[in-house]
Amino acid sequence: MFSVRALKYRRNVTFLWKRTNAKNMTRKLNISGIYPPIATPFTEREEVDYQKLDENLQKYSKLPFKGLVVQGSNGEYPYLTVNERLEVVKRVRDILPNSKLLIAGSGCESTKATVQMTGGMAHAGADAVLVVTPCFYRGRMNSKALIHHYTKVADASPVPVVLYSVPANTGLELPVDAIVCLSQHPNIVGLKDSGGDITRIGLIIHKTRLEDFQVLAGSAGFLMAAYAVGAVGGVCALANVLGEEVCELERLCMLGDWEKARELQHRLIEPNTAVTRKYGVAALKQAMEWFGFHGGATRSPLQPLSQTELQQLHVDFSSNGWL
Amino acid sequence: MFSVRALKYRRNVTFLWKRTNAKNMTRKLNISGIYPPIATPFTEREEVDYQKLDENLQKYSKLPFKGLVVQGSNGEYPYLTVNERLEVVKRVRDILPNSKLLIAGSGCESTKATVQMTGGMAHAGADAVLVVTPCFYRGRMNSKALIHHYTKVADASPVPVVLYSVPANTGLELPVDAIVCLSQHPNIVGLKDSGGDITRIGLIIHKTRLEDFQVLAGSAGFLMAAYAVGAVGGVCALANVLGEEVCELERLCMLGDWEKARELQHRLIEPNTAVTRKYGVAALKQAMEWFGFHGGATRSPLQPLSQTELQQLHVDFSSNGWL
Amino acid sequence: MFSVRALKYRRNVTFLWKRTNAKNMTRKLNISGIYPPIATPFTEREEVDYQKLDENLQKYSKLPFKGLVVQGSNGEYPYLTVNERLEVVKRVRDILPNSKLLIAGSGCESTKATVQMTGGMAHAGADAVLVVTPCFYRGRMNSKALIHHYTKVADASPVPVVLYSVPANTGLELPVDAIVCLSQHPNIVGLKDSGGDITRIGLIIHKTRLEDFQVLAGSAGFLMAAYAVGAVGGVCALANVLGEEVCELERLCMLGDWEKARELQHRLIEPNTAVTRKYGVAALKQAMEWFGFHGGATRSPLQPLSQTELQQLHVDFSSNGWL
Amino acid sequence: MFSVRALKYRRNVTFLWKRTNAKNMTRKLNISGIYPPIATPFTEREEVDYQKLDENLQKYSKLPFKGLVVQGSNGEYPYLTVNERLEVVKRVRDILPNSKLLIAGSGCESTKATVQMTGGMAHAGADAVLVVTPCFYRGRMNSKALIHHYTKVADASPVPVVLYSVPANTGLELPVDAIVCLSQHPNIVGLKDSGGDITRIGLIIHKTRLEDFQVLAGSAGFLMAAYAVGAVGGVCALANVLGEEVCELERLCMLGDWEKARELQHRLIEPNTAVTRKYGVAALKQAMEWFGFHGGATRSPLQPLSQTELQQLHVDFSSNGWL
Repeated sequence: MFSVRALKYRRNVTFLWKRTNAKNMTRKLNISGIYPPIATPFTEREEVDYQKLDENLQKYSKLPFKGLVVQGSNGEYPYLTVNERLEVVKRVRDILPNSKLLIAGSGCESTKATVQMTGGMAHAGADAVLVVTPCFYRGRMNSKALIHHYTKVADASPVPVVLYSVPANTGLELPVDAIVCLSQHPNIVGLKDSGGDITRIGLIIHKTRLEDFQVLAGSAGFLMAAYAVGAVGGVCALANVLGEEVCELERLCMLGDWEKARELQHRLIEPNTAVTRKYGVAALKQAMEWFGFHGGATRSPLQPLSQTELQQLHVDFSSNGWL
Repeated sequence: MFSVRALKYRRNVTFLWKRTNAKNMTRKLNISGIYPPIATPFTEREEVDYQKLDENLQKYSKLPFKGLVVQGSNGEYPYLTVNERLEVVKRVRDILPNSKLLIAGSGCESTKATVQMTGGMAHAGADAVLVVTPCFYRGRMNSKALIHHYTKVADASPVPVVLYSVPANTGLELPVDAIVCLSQHPNIVGLKDSGGDITRIGLIIHKTRLEDFQVLAGSAGFLMAAYAVGAVGGVCALANVLGEEVCELERLCMLGDWEKARELQHRLIEPNTAVTRKYGVAALKQAMEWFGFHGGATRSPLQPLSQTELQQLHVDFSSNGWL
Repeated sequence: MFSVRALKYRRNVTFLWKRTNAKNMTRKLNISGIYPPIATPFTEREEVDYQKLDENLQKYSKLPFKGLVVQGSNGEYPYLTVNERLEVVKRVRDILPNSKLLIAGSGCESTKATVQMTGGMAHAGADAVLVVTPCFYRGRMNSKALIHHYTKVADASPVPVVLYSVPANTGLELPVDAIVCLSQHPNIVGLKDSGGDITRIGLIIHKTRLEDFQVLAGSAGFLMAAYAVGAVGGVCALANVLGEEVCELERLCMLGDWEKARELQHRLIEPNTAVTRKYGVAALKQAMEWFGFHGGATRSPLQPLSQTELQQLHVDFSSNGWL
Repeated sequence: MFSVRALKYRRNVTFLWKRTNAKNMTRKLNISGIYPPIATPFTEREEVDYQKLDENLQKYSKLPFKGLVVQGSNGEYPYLTVNERLEVVKRVRDILPNSKLLIAGSGCESTKATVQMTGGMAHAGADAVLVVTPCFYRGRMNSKALIHHYTKVADASPVPVVLYSVPANTGLELPVDAIVCLSQHPNIVGLKDSGGDITRIGLIIHKTRLEDFQVLAGSAGFLMAAYAVGAVGGVCALANVLGEEVCELERLCMLGDWEKARELQHRLIEPNTAVTRKYGVAALKQAMEWFGFHGGATRSPLQPLSQTELQQLHVDFSSNGWL
């Protein structure tokens, strides 16, 4: 029973696949691999600290990352001015080896501002842009509005566009049907999904299988599971801290060494949750300090960790053997 | 039993009241009354249409509003540039009679940007500012962070500050304990609460009773109930459309004519929901057109209403006798 | 402008009113007034303590309640067996003066069981039944399913039916359109709404105005606001503790003495929240002890309050002048 | 850097492992494998249809299932009387080969009723019981209450207990810390997790690694990902319909053939979502009819699918090559 059904199904797929290949002559930019979404260091007076940024970049350049994401949620981009956002990207481009991809967050609330920021980011040296869902009027950000928004941005963008769904911050998940539709746009190469719903991630990969569309896990907590269902990489806050280890997890998944991958994955969950959902950017920056990077303060209204939070953060790393 | 308890309780209150009055020598700005949070008209190319804005303002000036809120959520402020936000406020100040209050939305995500925007708004002619809760990192926007944020802003602001809690857009409610704490700040005069939880609104009024702190209902849907529990006014999207009627509801509540107030309140709920939670700014702008104001298009990614939505919007007004 | 619209609207209403009155020849059971949803006392071994129940009932009989609700959420009805549910109702009927209404909770998950329990409750002496929304398959409990359920129950019930929407426990709000539809059933007399969304409550009253349909506030926290928008009473957990005061609030609202009503309402919010949403049935039972009633233990898995919770509960009463 | 940390970490684990093994002398019941949570067929008059149940069981007995779950959420257990719940389990035990495990759902709201039902299920022939979290007073169902509940049940149960977390129905997730604590109980053998948060599932497996504790995926939509992070099986509604295929997915995961597993997993997501979260039990029963089993009607208030839903359900199977 099983094999007959499979056969019939495969025939349809093959047919579609040919049609698709005829349509898209060129491959899209390959974004597979691991990226830390880098933090933005600030001075005590809350100015961008470019010196410390440079030093972090020197260290990140030596790790086996595919590239860096600049101004994902962990970069405190909503707290930067337009000029600061562009300036930080320029600085990263200056330091980062050309072999590494620079993906810059260019999302704004309005389509107009996003188009403009996207152009600016490309000009500042970004290889691709990561565009978060606009969310203030989330009750009206349905598939129609979001398809309209991303299509306008991708049409205008000089560089490839990566969709970005991060419900913990936006209160909004980019709907699967919108993603499937947008995956056909020649200038949209993939998706960073930070929601972590593995059933949804599998479905997205399945329904975009005939397009050249790449899904990146938005967090180290479900990186292995994402690889299992077909993701090609990850943008992981934890890679700012445990970069080597996150890349090792990628390597084990690519090799198919699931036994070792699982053990490593398990030990990364608590530290990852601690620097993301549980305690946020302040915790990420604190942990960076412990592991030899510059983290420093956050911008207000983000606050430093309380003593209790700090201790618990330490436990989340030490009880998993990292400190 | 009842009277003894009440007596004992009242004694404590009286004591506190005296202490408080000694502390605050001067009354805070009186913000009681009705305000439409005005929409921002755009041209077909999505530029701000100052001509149409002026014409709306001429009409609003003749209605018995206490003043206008410029760049509340209905003003599409997240879609305006910094310069546009300031320019619109200047324009409103030019047209609006001096007897009317101009409350300008000056909230941004970072404390720094909010302080700067607040100064700019005051300079542009705002009598007070309305400061929305920052929300992108909502998981970390606890009472401590929000008290820090608002205190910094209120300390620096040349004009009085109104707190603004709008969970439908921000995914975040300003906690009661933070409000109680902030109500003691001499430059914080009140709260616009758009969440509509009437138990919470009653509690806030109760717990700030010893301060000179004023609560405005953030929507016409619960305006009468808010008056009943002690609110002093409302910032109501529906007042852009049915301004006279919303002011009439205020008048009936102030008079204590609850019978007539109730009947009017009932007929405003569906139209109000339609132009807010149900269909949002595009519906508000459409309804404005029906009632002789300039509404026009929204900025992208907000989309026009579908035909079905448009018809339902019409029903929500007509079935309540307004069209 | 205003008066013309009002006139036209009123004409339609009057027309409908006549048609309606012709249809419903007899008035439905009048359920207006205040009801405590009584707690079920247990012995230390978690058996129903009928002796203590009797003593509570003796005291409640002297208060100006319209009646009692037996086996609302505060009665721990989901923890009682079928027999216990019926037995408790019988016992209450035996003690309660005939002048007082006994409304018994008869909701079960299946329609079949609810019909059966409803018959049993009527037989045990209930004057009306309160039927909670079934909720386990909440994703499928849409208007169609709920209208079907309540219609079957009301068709079969020997006594009038009160709808019951309590989203804090069921994760489900009975939709407004379903309520409007069900309000036309001759054996459905009203709704207990514990959600506390005052806009929704106003809308329900507005849209059922042509039926003989009565809305009861499901909590003392928004009782005054509910009266303001047209509710006719309340089923208030807090009335188990401060019964006289809740009835006094009713009296002030009926008199239209809003000033005094507001002051009293304000002081009831924190105690009410403490014995409902914040700490639940265990807190209600504890507070009952403080005020001379038998509360006692809850059934497992409900747990006693922690020391910290107990202290905070005391503060919530004492800081409002009740202890 | 990586290897040193790993070494130190492993040493701690080894130490704990020895301690643990000394404590637990005997292995717990092995529950690894695939289980359909069987549907309960009803006659047109909504009586349990034992004849059709028998015929389904004959077919299921021939599939490579580890056993059956009787009265999981898909069995409509909240709609069955106490006697029906026991009777159905007896019937299944009579038909099912002894080599197959029978896991019976015995959860009720109160601890007392759950203890009693658990005893009844064991007596009726269950090899183990599946105990859903009580949920009506979900605001008070914290770790303390749930640990108390499950400990009482496990202490009293004649057969091993499987914890059951199904937030879509209960609105409640069994907290990780409660699971870790309960995993040490000698009579608690594992967890069915239907929430599908793969990060959480990985963490649970990690934090219970020193106990003999087994995690089952509660849905076919994330079965492969769950195996990847260390689950040992699944209780999958879809296995009622596509039992052979779900078992094939298990086989591929056990073999480590991730390429083929992924392709099969992808094709199961949409059918699985359709018969669970999207359309529920009515859809499951409809799909069972299409694949040669008896599904039939649901009990009220669950309703049959609408025509549109029925068509979409068909598409969800056919577009993935199953129909």
